[in-house]
Amino acid sequence: MTLTDQQDAYGRLLLDAFEERPAVEVVERDDGFLMASTAGAPANYFAPFRRWPAHQRKAMRLVRGRVLDVGCGAGRVALHLQRRDQEVVAIDLSPLAVEVSRRRGVRDARVLSIAEVDERVGPIDTIVMMGNNFGLFGSAPRAKRLLRRFASLGSGRRRIVAEVLDPSQTNDPDHLAYHERNRERGRLPGQIRIRIRHRHYSTPWFDYLFVSPTELETLIEDTGWMLTRTIPSSGGLYVAVLEGC
Amino acid sequence: MTLTDQQDAYGRLLLDAFEERPAVEVVERDDGFLMASTAGAPANYFAPFRRWPAHQRKAMRLVRGRVLDVGCGAGRVALHLQRRDQEVVAIDLSPLAVEVSRRRGVRDARVLSIAEVDERVGPIDTIVMMGNNFGLFGSAPRAKRLLRRFASLGSGRRRIVAEVLDPSQTNDPDHLAYHERNRERGRLPGQIRIRIRHRHYSTPWFDYLFVSPTELETLIEDTGWMLTRTIPSSGGLYVAVLEGC
Repeated sequence: MTLTDQQDAYGRLLLDAFEERPAVEVVERDDGFLMASTAGAPANYFAPFRRWPAHQRKAMRLVRGRVLDVGCGAGRVALHLQRRDQEVVAIDLSPLAVEVSRRRGVRDARVLSIAEVDERVGPIDTIVMMGNNFGLFGSAPRAKRLLRRFASLGSGRRRIVAEVLDPSQTNDPDHLAYHERNRERGRLPGQIRIRIRHRHYSTPWFDYLFVSPTELETLIEDTGWMLTRTIPSSGGLYVAVLEGC
Repeated sequence: MTLTDQQDAYGRLLLDAFEERPAVEVVERDDGFLMASTAGAPANYFAPFRRWPAHQRKAMRLVRGRVLDVGCGAGRVALHLQRRDQEVVAIDLSPLAVEVSRRRGVRDARVLSIAEVDERVGPIDTIVMMGNNFGLFGSAPRAKRLLRRFASLGSGRRRIVAEVLDPSQTNDPDHLAYHERNRERGRLPGQIRIRIRHRHYSTPWFDYLFVSPTELETLIEDTGWMLTRTIPSSGGLYVAVLEGC
């Protein structure tokens, strides 16, 4: 799948922010719920390491060897790891995100979706999914399928360091109603269907997955991965560390 | 017309901002173009007089006598005029905007649309339409109709002090294409159909009118008003001062 220019709302947002034009991230959920970021994005996508939240900084200590940065955005994680002399393959579905990453100095940035990752990325020691990018797995069945494939790409000591959102950490009635409808349809409560909109650009609708640590443990059964550690944060965010087994 | 709770996206935005919850104004145009405010709104709706843009502060010198504040929002204009000991009737279509205005100290705030203004508001010397609220006239025919009615409400020295956006002051291809489609349909180029969205709230679609000073002069012909002064600003914004004739 290749995004058309009109569909690359996320990349356009990053490019506009990079070139100092007005840019506010707007996420539309398929129930009509609209979230517009306040202070956070897109500035967060460009933040230097010292301004990252503590749990993300801690997570970086666990990133070793040759790295696959899934959903690299504006490249902040890849740039940090490059500065530490790690080799990074940074991928993003968005052509403009990849362009911004390259312009900011990411040496190996490729237009590639999480579903297209295969042996062409080369041997990988750590897969990094910051910025809540565990969500890119989309749904439980897709996560299982992709995790099995990721297991085959890794070195002997393969690891995934992923930021995850626990959807149960909310009391927002809109979110709770959405979770309940998911349960009724046999989905994980935190599987949300969204698109990103910016000016006249709109991404296609896509699924984004939020899971609690318990749901995560169930999800990764029989995929070749086990949950070895979590790094808690606030607002339901946490980092999950998965190791090959 | 009375907005339902679900339709009061604008008022909900103001209430959320007032109660210090995340609030970003998102305006969706009927061609799918989405504008999310950056630093500006909703903070601007609460700004004290000293932080207003210069052209708005200047405009306040022309506001005399008993005032009708059309589209009062969070009440910043009404509060300023009250502090100057002017009597103000503040109206807004949004019940929650009126609630926020009252909680902030506006003494006479009423849920009333611009189309519902009649002699019940009492004798008015100056009609104020800040925050680009000339747009609330919606379309050329509606503006003519309402201006004629406003002429009948005024005192002998009636005045309108309105902030207007000149749509010709842009080189954005999306906006220019929209203007061109309007021309083809026999509308003023700057008549835009929009709705405001916030979380699961969405206003009905409504027309909002941007006009150049020249278009404004044509528009007000035979309505009982004449353009006596404009106060220029940046980005196409200006204040138009209309006097009864």
